[in-house]
Amino acid sequence: MADLADLGESELINRLRRFAKPGQFNDDAALLSPDQHLLRVVSTDALVEGVHFSSSTTPGFSVGWRSGSANLSDLAAMGCLEAEGVTVALAAPGHTSIDWLEEVYEGLAALLQRHGCELLGGDCTRAPVVMLAITAIGKVAADAVIRRESGQPGDRLVVSGAHGLSNLGLRLLQNPSDISLQQLSEPLRKAAIKAHQFPVPRFDAVAALHRSRPEAAPWRVAGTDSSDGLRRSLELLGNACGHQPLLDEPFALTEGCCLDGGEDFELVLALEASWAEKFVAQLPGAQCIGWLGENPGPPCWANNKKPLPIGKGYEHFAKL
Amino acid sequence: MADLADLGESELINRLRRFAKPGQFNDDAALLSPDQHLLRVVSTDALVEGVHFSSSTTPGFSVGWRSGSANLSDLAAMGCLEAEGVTVALAAPGHTSIDWLEEVYEGLAALLQRHGCELLGGDCTRAPVVMLAITAIGKVAADAVIRRESGQPGDRLVVSGAHGLSNLGLRLLQNPSDISLQQLSEPLRKAAIKAHQFPVPRFDAVAALHRSRPEAAPWRVAGTDSSDGLRRSLELLGNACGHQPLLDEPFALTEGCCLDGGEDFELVLALEASWAEKFVAQLPGAQCIGWLGENPGPPCWANNKKPLPIGKGYEHFAKL
Repeated sequence: MADLADLGESELINRLRRFAKPGQFNDDAALLSPDQHLLRVVSTDALVEGVHFSSSTTPGFSVGWRSGSANLSDLAAMGCLEAEGVTVALAAPGHTSIDWLEEVYEGLAALLQRHGCELLGGDCTRAPVVMLAITAIGKVAADAVIRRESGQPGDRLVVSGAHGLSNLGLRLLQNPSDISLQQLSEPLRKAAIKAHQFPVPRFDAVAALHRSRPEAAPWRVAGTDSSDGLRRSLELLGNACGHQPLLDEPFALTEGCCLDGGEDFELVLALEASWAEKFVAQLPGAQCIGWLGENPGPPCWANNKKPLPIGKGYEHFAKL
Repeated sequence: MADLADLGESELINRLRRFAKPGQFNDDAALLSPDQHLLRVVSTDALVEGVHFSSSTTPGFSVGWRSGSANLSDLAAMGCLEAEGVTVALAAPGHTSIDWLEEVYEGLAALLQRHGCELLGGDCTRAPVVMLAITAIGKVAADAVIRRESGQPGDRLVVSGAHGLSNLGLRLLQNPSDISLQQLSEPLRKAAIKAHQFPVPRFDAVAALHRSRPEAAPWRVAGTDSSDGLRRSLELLGNACGHQPLLDEPFALTEGCCLDGGEDFELVLALEASWAEKFVAQLPGAQCIGWLGENPGPPCWANNKKPLPIGKGYEHFAKL
């Protein structure tokens, strides 16, 4: 009998699609009761102790902050400029320290406050490990939504910031005595640890999209966030719009953590060329990394069409 | 250092209140961006394997159905006449059977379809046990909200149906060879098992509230659902409005499962007397069980002010 580890996350989600409307699972979040002008956006993410964090590498404050960021990042990836509120389902063993739990909520509250978002409510229950399932709700103007399917051939692929930092930060925290890691510059090490512990949902990048929109250009922005890694974002974007992501070679960091590290929570966008140019000029750290080809296909290098270096994508149900 | 088991669920929630607006946690669900006419209602509930269900007593279909019911019941308890959609955070071990998981989603989908509600999206991840955290979203007219705090002295306490059935059903399933249980009539046994496996959110009771509203009466309905037991509902209602629930003796079933069984998902309401009378006449199974006194206090018998028989309330973090 098939189990989850055999099937894997992507195939599980494919099996579950039939329980929702066609296309309902195609983006980072769900759009609710579309009316003419304003849509509600709903996103749910779960973090599990031992899978997404461990108490040895992640202080409670950071667990709370990161849980909130993961969700708010999905709202940004749909085009929201802000979030309205979140609910939290907390499951935890009876032996969980209250101090640690309060740190978790302090971290979440700090992240929410930074983005003008409220804790709406939730549920608390017992479980063998700590799990936080957060649902975030936001709104977006009906004519300023970001959908993965909106990409067109010739669109420039743009990222809102660097990839791999969060994964580097995690490795620094997990291997404090690894000499090759410690030889990295102190500013880089600090930035990496910060990126891992306190990722920021890129509402500012959505605002930059609005500011940099060329006059008279229709709103057409394809995008997703890079929570499961840059490679995965490019695959999702390419598959949804049916155009192959072609990457500039100079962009390449051969480090697997750049393509597959995950948890960077940057926006990965496909934009008409002049918009892309203005956007990158507006937003420090943003970068053009390639473009969308005519035909469907997996992400590859633009110059030789070779596949990207093989790394290990994040697979939620892998047998450990 | 204090842990969750020492603290208990109510006190944990009290500690967490400071992370939200004052009063934000006082009802069954959260109200979102109130505008003049229509409010969005958001509710989150988590079910954990070994705590809320076990694969030995609960088929996957029923796990999915009950998870959805628990959430939709919270929307009904806020006055919603229907639900718009739900998101699901699923966490499960790699060895989880896909067939079983699909049954869970089939059960959830059947419940949602019954109430015209959609699966909006969610998240899937790995965890040592199966956990389902569901967030439901609904809407309610701003002038037809049910709040716990709205009760006034003299209001009749009304329940939308019988309490204890779900707990009896669970005991029947867990103890198939218990002769005293098997001596109960077959219709009662069947009804109890159905109540446990396929509870129904009482949107029909909300509709009956609208139909039975006395002409020219302002909308003033206090209420909650009885997911954590009838005693707990009465406590929550009494505490929120500051008036002691006084119960008619004849109502009493001394069985602890009536007061503390939980998971009945009935509505427990406080209504002005003429409205209560019409409501009970409209809704088969509904019953007046007492009224609200002048002063604050815990639920007690009306005739002698004695406390209700001692039972064991449902405590999520109790050490097993």
